[in-house]
This record gives sequence, C-alpha cells and structure tokens, in this order.
Amino acid sequence: MTSATKVNPDLSDERKKVEFDVEEFTNWYYKGAENVAEKRFLENFFLSDPELEDKVPTSYLSHKEKYENAVRKAVLVVNKIKELQADGRGGVDIYMALLGGTLGTAIFREANPITVHFVMFLPAIMNHGTSDQQAEWISRAWNCNIIGTYAQTELGHGTYIRGLETTATYDPKSKEFILNSPNLTSYKWWPGGLGHTTNYAIVIAQLHSLGKCHGIQPFIVQLRDEETHMPLKGIKIGEIGNKVGMNTVNNGFLAFDNVRIPLKNMLMKNAKVLEDGQFIKPKSSVLTYGTMMFVRVVILKDMASYLSKAVTIALRYSMVRRQSPIEPNKPEPKIIEHVTQQYKIFPAIAKVIVFKITAEFLWDMYNQVTHDLDKGDLERLPELHAISCCLKAVCTNEAAQAVEICRLSTGGHGYLNSAGFQDIYGMVTAAQTYEGENTVMFLQTARYLIKCWEKAMNGEKLTPTVSYLENFIKGRNSRQSFQNSPSGILKAFQLAAAKKIAESNKHLEERKKYLSPEEATNQTGLELINASELHCQAFLLQATIEVLEDSTKQTSLQLRSVLKDLLELYSVDLALRYTGSLLEFANMTSSDIEFLQRSLEALLKKLRYNILGIVDGFDHPDQILGSVLGTYDGNVYENLINAAMKSPLNQEDVNKSFHLYLKPFMKSNL
Amino acid sequence: MTSATKVNPDLSDERKKVEFDVEEFTNWYYKGAENVAEKRFLENFFLSDPELEDKVPTSYLSHKEKYENAVRKAVLVVNKIKELQADGRGGVDIYMALLGGTLGTAIFREANPITVHFVMFLPAIMNHGTSDQQAEWISRAWNCNIIGTYAQTELGHGTYIRGLETTATYDPKSKEFILNSPNLTSYKWWPGGLGHTTNYAIVIAQLHSLGKCHGIQPFIVQLRDEETHMPLKGIKIGEIGNKVGMNTVNNGFLAFDNVRIPLKNMLMKNAKVLEDGQFIKPKSSVLTYGTMMFVRVVILKDMASYLSKAVTIALRYSMVRRQSPIEPNKPEPKIIEHVTQQYKIFPAIAKVIVFKITAEFLWDMYNQVTHDLDKGDLERLPELHAISCCLKAVCTNEAAQAVEICRLSTGGHGYLNSAGFQDIYGMVTAAQTYEGENTVMFLQTARYLIKCWEKAMNGEKLTPTVSYLENFIKGRNSRQSFQNSPSGILKAFQLAAAKKIAESNKHLEERKKYLSPEEATNQTGLELINASELHCQAFLLQATIEVLEDSTKQTSLQLRSVLKDLLELYSVDLALRYTGSLLEFANMTSSDIEFLQRSLEALLKKLRYNILGIVDGFDHPDQILGSVLGTYDGNVYENLINAAMKSPLNQEDVNKSFHLYLKPFMKSNL
Repeated sequence: MTSATKVNPDLSDERKKVEFDVEEFTNWYYKGAENVAEKRFLENFFLSDPELEDKVPTSYLSHKEKYENAVRKAVLVVNKIKELQADGRGGVDIYMALLGGTLGTAIFREANPITVHFVMFLPAIMNHGTSDQQAEWISRAWNCNIIGTYAQTELGHGTYIRGLETTATYDPKSKEFILNSPNLTSYKWWPGGLGHTTNYAIVIAQLHSLGKCHGIQPFIVQLRDEETHMPLKGIKIGEIGNKVGMNTVNNGFLAFDNVRIPLKNMLMKNAKVLEDGQFIKPKSSVLTYGTMMFVRVVILKDMASYLSKAVTIALRYSMVRRQSPIEPNKPEPKIIEHVTQQYKIFPAIAKVIVFKITAEFLWDMYNQVTHDLDKGDLERLPELHAISCCLKAVCTNEAAQAVEICRLSTGGHGYLNSAGFQDIYGMVTAAQTYEGENTVMFLQTARYLIKCWEKAMNGEKLTPTVSYLENFIKGRNSRQSFQNSPSGILKAFQLAAAKKIAESNKHLEERKKYLSPEEATNQTGLELINASELHCQAFLLQATIEVLEDSTKQTSLQLRSVLKDLLELYSVDLALRYTGSLLEFANMTSSDIEFLQRSLEALLKKLRYNILGIVDGFDHPDQILGSVLGTYDGNVYENLINAAMKSPLNQEDVNKSFHLYLKPFMKSNL
Repeated sequence: MTSATKVNPDLSDERKKVEFDVEEFTNWYYKGAENVAEKRFLENFFLSDPELEDKVPTSYLSHKEKYENAVRKAVLVVNKIKELQADGRGGVDIYMALLGGTLGTAIFREANPITVHFVMFLPAIMNHGTSDQQAEWISRAWNCNIIGTYAQTELGHGTYIRGLETTATYDPKSKEFILNSPNLTSYKWWPGGLGHTTNYAIVIAQLHSLGKCHGIQPFIVQLRDEETHMPLKGIKIGEIGNKVGMNTVNNGFLAFDNVRIPLKNMLMKNAKVLEDGQFIKPKSSVLTYGTMMFVRVVILKDMASYLSKAVTIALRYSMVRRQSPIEPNKPEPKIIEHVTQQYKIFPAIAKVIVFKITAEFLWDMYNQVTHDLDKGDLERLPELHAISCCLKAVCTNEAAQAVEICRLSTGGHGYLNSAGFQDIYGMVTAAQTYEGENTVMFLQTARYLIKCWEKAMNGEKLTPTVSYLENFIKGRNSRQSFQNSPSGILKAFQLAAAKKIAESNKHLEERKKYLSPEEATNQTGLELINASELHCQAFLLQATIEVLEDSTKQTSLQLRSVLKDLLELYSVDLALRYTGSLLEFANMTSSDIEFLQRSLEALLKKLRYNILGIVDGFDHPDQILGSVLGTYDGNVYENLINAAMKSPLNQEDVNKSFHLYLKPFMKSNL
C-alpha cells in the first residue's frame, strides 16, 4: 500500500488527524481480517507479475493492439489462476471471484475476452446440460481446450427475450438442428469474446420442430475450426466495433446460414426434443432466479467498488491540490477546504458503504428465500425480484452520476485518461443498460408495488419490504411529523413511497376506464418510476440502518462514531435531494429543510478530518486505482508529468507530420 | 439531407404526420433562409472533399495515428478556408466561424491542433500588441508562417490566475526577459497545439523587473526552430497525454530554463516595460469583457448544437427501434410509444431551443451594454458578467446530463462509438470545466446576487435581470399562488430565487458574526449555489418567453403552435424538476404538482407526431451526426453492421493473437 517515494506532506499531515484505526475499518468493510489478507495476497500475486504490467498505457494503443494485448494477458491470468489452484487455493470459485466477481474487476481493471467462458458458458452447460452433455463438454471447457461464449441478445432484440428471431429447426431425417438468422435484426450482437476469441457458443434460438415453434432454447454450437480458428461454413462472425468502455471484451456478432448441429447439442436438462422431433416441455422452474440474483448482487458490489476508487482519487487529490484563496492575502488552501468540494465527495463515500452493505443484505435475503423455497414456500420470490430490480437501477444510476461528479471535482486534470476516471465511468455506465435496462427495471418493481397495494387494500398481509404499505393504509403513519434522524428520514421515505404508490394507482385506475390495463400502465409510467425510486431509497436506507446497527456492535467507539456520521450524512443528503417528494407527501416543512441543511453542513465539518481514513481503508493499491491523481503518496504533479512522458508522441521531439504536412504548409505563403 | 438509400418506412411514415413545414422551422431556427443556405454551402464544401473523409473511423487508430491524421486534416481545412477567401467569402470572421465557432465545431466534429492559433494566438497579438508588434507578427501569423498557441494555465494553477508561477525577469543589461519555470506546478499545461504542433506561444508570466513583481503579462515566445521544429534551448515541451475527448487537440506542457527573449516580445499595448526596466502601469480597462462574453455565448450555442445532435440520434432511433410489447399479443411497438422514452428525449429537444435562444439574447444584451459603455455607463457590466457565469454552468451541466440520457435511451447500441454519443459527450463535459469551472461560476453569480440583495434592501434600484428582488422586498409577489403557465412558472422561480437569496443571506450574516466574510461565504456555499441556480433557471425561462413571443409573430400558425408546446413542455418539466424549491418557497401545493404532471403527460402526447419535424429541422447531415443510429434514412441495422465491418479487427478472419497466445493455451491441457 505504502509507496517507496516520499509522501506529500499535505497528505501525511492529513493522515495524522484521522482518529480511528484505518485497518480496523478495512477489516470491518471486507468482513474480517482473513478476507483482507486473502485480498492482499491475490492483489500482490497478480500485480507483481511484470508480464501483466503495461509499459505503455493501453489507451494509447490502436484498437487492434488493445485486443492483442488483452488476449495475451487473459491467457496469462488464467494460467496464474491455475497455478493458484495447483497450490490448493480454491476450486471453481476462484475463477468466478477473479473473472466474474468484484475482486477480479478491481485487480484487472480491464475486462477480459475470455471471462464469459468462465462466467456464462461453463455455468450454462452445468445448469442446462444433461449429465451426458456435462460429461461430453465440461472437462474440455474446464481445461480451455474449447473456449465459449453465451449468445442471446440480437441486433434487434435485447430486453424482450421472447422476441429473439434466430431459429433452430429440427430435421428428423438427419437428426440435426438447422440454425438460421432469418434477417439482420436476428444477428447475435454483444456476446463477450465472440468476435475473434471463442470457438464455441451457447446460442439461444427459437426451437421449431414438426412445424411448431416451442420458444427459446439453448444450443451448443461450434463456431470456428479448432485447429485453424477459421469460421465454419455458414457462419458469419466478427466484432461489433469499439465502445465507450470495455474495449478489451471483444464483443461480437454472429449470423447463421443453414448451420447444422446434432440433436445432442441442444441443452436438454429442462426441455427436450426426442429423435422423432417430439417436444417435451420442461417442468416449471424458478431455479433461474439464482443466477439473476447472483448477477444483481455482483452489480451492486461492483458499483460500490468502482465508486470507492473514484472517491479515493477525488479525495486524495483534493487534499493536495491548492486553488482559489478563501481568505484574501492567505495562501491558496487545499481545495477540500471549500465546503462545495466536500459536498461533491463525502456523500459519495457514504454511498459506497450503503451500496456494499445493501448488496450483502440482498444476498442474505436471497439465501433466506431459497431456504424457504426448499420448504415449498414461494411467497417471497416476487418481492426479492422486485427489490433487486429497483436496486440495480438506483445503484447503477447513482454510481454513474457520482463517478462523474468526482471526476469534475478534480477539474481539468480529471479529464486526462491518466486520472483514471474514464475507465471507471466506462464500466459503471455500461451497467445502467446491461442485465436489465434501468427504466425497465423500475417499471418491473412498480408493477409489483401496485399489486402489493391492491393486496393491502384487500386486507392481505404483505411481505417485509412492503409492509409499510399496510401501516399507511391503516392510517398509522400518514400524519407523523418529519424527524431529522436516519430512522425518521426512513419513515418519511416510506410515507412518501406509500403516497406516491397510492397516487399512481389512482391515476392508473382512472386511465383503465378508457384504456387497456397495459396502455394505462404505459401512460402512468413516469409516476410509476417515481414510486419505484422512492421505495428503493427507503429500502437502501432501511437495510443500511439495520446492518450498521448490528455490525458495529463489536467495533471501537471511534470507528462506530465515524460510521454513524456517514449514515447520518447519507440520510440527510438523501432527504435534501428529495425535498420535492417529502414536502409533497411526508409532512416535511420549510423549517425541517433549513434544519437538514444545517445538519448537512455540520456533518461535512465533522467528517472533514476522518474521511481520509475511510478512503485509505478501502485499501486500493495504486496499481488498482490506476490514477495519477489518487496515489497513496499524493505526489500528483510528478505523477502527471511522468504519465505524460509515457505518451508515444513524447518519445520523439518532432513528429513526422511536421515534415509531411506542417512545414510545406507554413512555407507555402512565404 | 436526404439519402440515396431507401428510407425506413417506420421513419417515412412518421415524417408524413408532421403538421408544420420543416424548412420553415429551419429558417426560423437559423434566423433566415440566407443563413441556412450559407450553412449548407459550407457543410457541402467541406464534407464533399474525399480527403477530409476518414476511411477507417479514427477511434480505431492509435493515439499517434490520430494526431498525424489530425495535422493532415487541419492543414487541408485551413487551405480550403483560404480558397473560400480567395472566392471573396468572408475575412477573419470565417476563420472564427469555422475554427472557433459552433458551425465549425459541427462540421469538423473533431477539434483541431491549430484552432488555438486562429482563435487565441492571433487575437491576443491584435488585442495586446502595439502597432509595431502587430506589424512584426500579424502577417507572419496570418499566413501561418508561424503557428502559435496561448499558454496561461499551469499544472498547479487554473482558476486562480494570479497564482501563476512562471516568471519573466527583465535583464536591463541585455534588454531581455529571462523566462523560468521555478517548479513543477509552474509547468504550462493544457494549451491546444502546444505539444508538437505550434512553434510560438503567447506565454502569460509574472513580470519581475528591478526587483519587483508587477503581476502577470503576456509575452511572445518562440518555442521551436522554424526549419527543424526542434525545441529551442532551455525549452522542455511535449503533450500532456490522452483524454476523455478532444484527443486531436494536441494539448501540451511547457517549461522554461533561463530562456531569453528580447524586450520587444512583451505585448505592450497596455502595461509597458521601458529599456531601463521601469514598469508603466496600464490604464484600467474593461475591454477584456468582450472576449469573455464572446466565449460564453459560443459555449451556450455549442451546448445547443451538441445537444441537438444527441436528440436527433435518440429520436430517430426511437422511431425505428421496436422493443417490449405494451399490449400483449400485439407486435413490439416503436420504443417512442413508451411514455418513459418520450420523457427522456422531448424535454431535451426543448432545451436545445432554450439554450440557443438564450445565447442570442445574451449576445444582444452584451452589445447593448457595450453600447452603453461607450457612453460611459458601466452600470450593467457586473450584471452581464453574473448572468453569463451561471448560464455557462447551468447550460453545460444540463447539456452533459441530457446527452447521457439520450445515449442511455438508445440502450446497448448507444454504448458503441459508432452511435456517436461518446464524441458528443467528450466535448460537452469538457465545457463543464473549461473557461470557468462550474462551481466557481455559480459562486461568482451568487456573490453578485448577495450584493444586489443588499442594494435592494437599501432601497436602491436594480438592473433588469435582478429587478424581481425589488418586487419581492416590496412584498408584491410573495403570496401569489402558483399558476401553471410559462409566465406563472417564471414568477414562481423568481419568487423561489428571491427567497433562497434572502435565506442564504440570512445564514451568511449569522456566520459573519463569528467568521470572516470570506469564510462565512465558503460555509454558505451550498445554499449560495442553489440560489444562483434558481436565478439562472428563471432567466433562461424569461429570455425564452420573451424571444419566442417576438420571433414567432411572422411564422405560420402551425409552427407557432409547436414552438408554444415546446415552451410549455420546457416550463412544466422545469417546475417538476424543482418541486422541492417551489413547494418550499413559491406557494406550490400538492394539487399543483398533480396538475403539472398531467400537463407534462398531455404535452408529450401532443408533441408525439410533430417532434420529428423539429429534429429534422435542426438540419444535421448524416456526416455531421456521425451516428449509425441517427441517419436520416433510419436504416439503423444495416448501418450498425456496416460500421462493425469497418473495424480493423474485422479485416481478417483470424487475428494473430490466436496463433501467438490462444492456440498454445488451448492445446496445453489436452
């Protein structure tokens, strides 16, 4: 963590003022000293390998060079994971942790063109393949003799999976499926590694047999020759082009022209096709919830992780950058002394903790629900789905905004790639769209909330995350006055959510008098999203209050006090961001707002000298931060110049374009 | 405008439904048919040149290749401008329009490494040089025999210019200035073209003479040999590295080690140094306002222009993309049918018009004020400065957010570089920081508002943009009930701004009892920014109401009606975004909000079939949009695949990384 170079005194002075034990925070944040030791071991294991270090920052490379370098490193990383396994560290889990999990995302910073092989291709065979199919494919895939991807999304079809157009038509004569892409919109589009890396794919296609369509099913399809890597006959394949971020993933497209695969290549653990073409329906299954919940939890943790990097960079920089005198005739202060600067960063630091805690809360909830499920109790499944949808939307939206605010808080230097924000933003903003587009997510939660509202109106009992609706209907809280405390703000949000759900429902019912229920829902979409968002904010706050209360029982007083301040800052800031809703629905008054504003300012001041301990405690090594502005030693100006000197253009005094274009031009009018 | 290929019927059907004459809107928007003809002539003049077309999208190139290509094109563009001049089209103006103005930004999309030569180097010599200095430098600069930049910002100093550290010390013996960079933080950092392109610079440095510092002054400094382009002795120079956007600008750094320049190289139109080293103070001057106001107006127009591209892309795509059934058992609708999608795009379209109109309003105001100035009346200068500060901040912030919302509204495809949003965002978000960091801008306006408040409390008369404060203090409007109309919403914003200024001032005064005025201002910073923002929103709305009223008197009824709907949409959306402030300060009630929500939904519906005419009327040729999703013909899927096929990786079936890394890896565990 510490650097060999001398630490900027502006930053070392700040560190002396931190009143709590940073290592205690780190252990609390990562849930135990063992986890921290393991994290540090793995970071060091990978980051100390000179082969994985980029001599020239990859952003200077051409797109093609970036890809080639990414393949080189991907192979190295997987080989190093195998080394770890040979030393007895972890089984399948370590691939998931390092390639699909937050730790891996942190260590490697760039996405990897063979991640999808481990995170989706292998699990799909395990989850959807029969034991025969597993026997045939798992070991080859596990040993990377074949490398696969997961091809679902099409050029014209993302969110609405039933609209997929790729067809797999069974031919009973040859006992084969014939795959086709009937038109442009059916081209597979986006799968990671599909462009030039993988030679197999799980392809999701509409199954046709004996003249009937049986909906979408998964098929294993070979795409490229195993020796030459040439695309097989009938297969059109390539990459989809470069993007805002994630340019090392090699996202690809794929089209089929009468590609034949044997019957046994349909993954048949659930639905089946018999040799004669007869289709056997699957037993209905809720098992797919597992993967989805896992992905949502990973996204929430990722948002916490990415945002924790952005705030580390912004805060450390703000403690060494000096700009704009506050008092005339005094030297320029550290920019962190400007209250407006504190406000850009401190609430984002609180969000990191809230998102991380809520991700873990959601995961515990999921495990509880699957436990109930084993006893045949499906009651909480829709609730779990609903809360995970709005959490995905709120946390990715807020993380994206907060990362940009952090970047902007560092002024012009934040615009440099060497500041590291753009890499972070590229990853975070992608999550606003993938795994469920955020507007769709909000509307899914809203649909559930409306159902709950109707149930509650009928006197039915509700599950925990929505039970506040019952209280509201029973009139238990509609007149409560606003209280400025985390639990008071939570109650205000629950009241506001309840009233907004009620109001949306009223407008929905009015519209149903002359519109279909679906069109009425569409017309009420904007209000439904508001309701969904209020519900989600209440849940984030509730989960954090509960977990913090419980998990800080054993911590030192000093740490507990700082975490309490952060929770208060989070809730006060939340209330001030939603004064519109709270004034409208939750009995807030103007003097409440004035009081909240003072609390906010007081909390910023209170946290001023402890906050550095929190970002240091996130424990990101400089290599992982990848930022000249955020290094532990705070030597930002040396870093900026050193980074500039790495630019390929700076390797020569005069670029050839002078002789080719500039000089002839400058001399032409002499 | 129209394309040779067949227009997607989804889009041609939509065009038939537009009820107004699109060309009439275009002529209104660009203020006359002559301007539109000139715009189209210039677009065609540049865009039809095959030498300026990129065969491979530049985003695929390495950083170095991007630079070399940019120099090649910059020379071509300037030569083509000279061609235009030879044909009698424009003088200096055309350089400014095409290199520093919105039209040029639109046509060339990428920034240019010699733009600063025309936009800052040349004007600086004209504005700050004596007639002798002009005679010496202007014609060489005008003919591009030398190419210069403007070096002010330093690694450690941006906003606070007085903090600059570069020194120019006069040596009376040799009659030279000696330039030095005393430390890292004094390195010049950011000037466009400085890296490897320019051979001269205007350098802003602290003038020392006869043992005294006389503050910052401008100097002409040669940086590179005119024949070899090698950096001169004592000069350390290079580029600062790649960035979120604007990567063809070649921003550079520069450090001096005892670099000597003759006395005559200090630009001495204002301050002077005599041969013996005596310093002659400048007469105080307000002339610098001119450049600053010009730049602010250009930024506002740029924001309108960039955002107009983003909305064009998002809207056209939304009218051909089909996704997620609204009604079960019906086909997937165009995504524009989802009300939530309309809300992402329509208000942003209204913003384009508001920003453009306000930019012109500001420019007229500036000309009025300079007219008064000539008569010795300086009264409105501070007002003009104050309103331009908050406008710069609000318009760049809102444009940045709106561009990202447009990108996200196009789902995953928007994340592709070929969608064109990233280029736009890179330019827009840069403007949040350059030419006055936005938080600093808000606080400057706030300082003015507090002064006005004090004046008004003392019964002094205020200038027009703040006269609403007088009304408030006289109690003329504090009890007015909220009215749902553009002028009613304007009054509500003025009331809210007045009350927020009053409240901030109250808190400021309280703090002044125990803090210095400056520290009290710092502690009240968050509220001062809120006040400043409310003031700005009121001004934007007021300017738009006034100009629209006036400028649509001659238009057709159909066009006037659509523009009126857009103004209403803008104001209703604005009110709904600020319900917190309006409920707190402007007598808004819950039922007002419910009513506004209905108005919003009604306006979206009303504009649904006319809105395409507005974006078509922005009249962006496909080449300028640079987006596969936004072409006039709406053939997005063909475009997406064609763009992908241009990726250098897709030029070969098998990339060499397969043979180098993947194959050995895949075979290693057989």
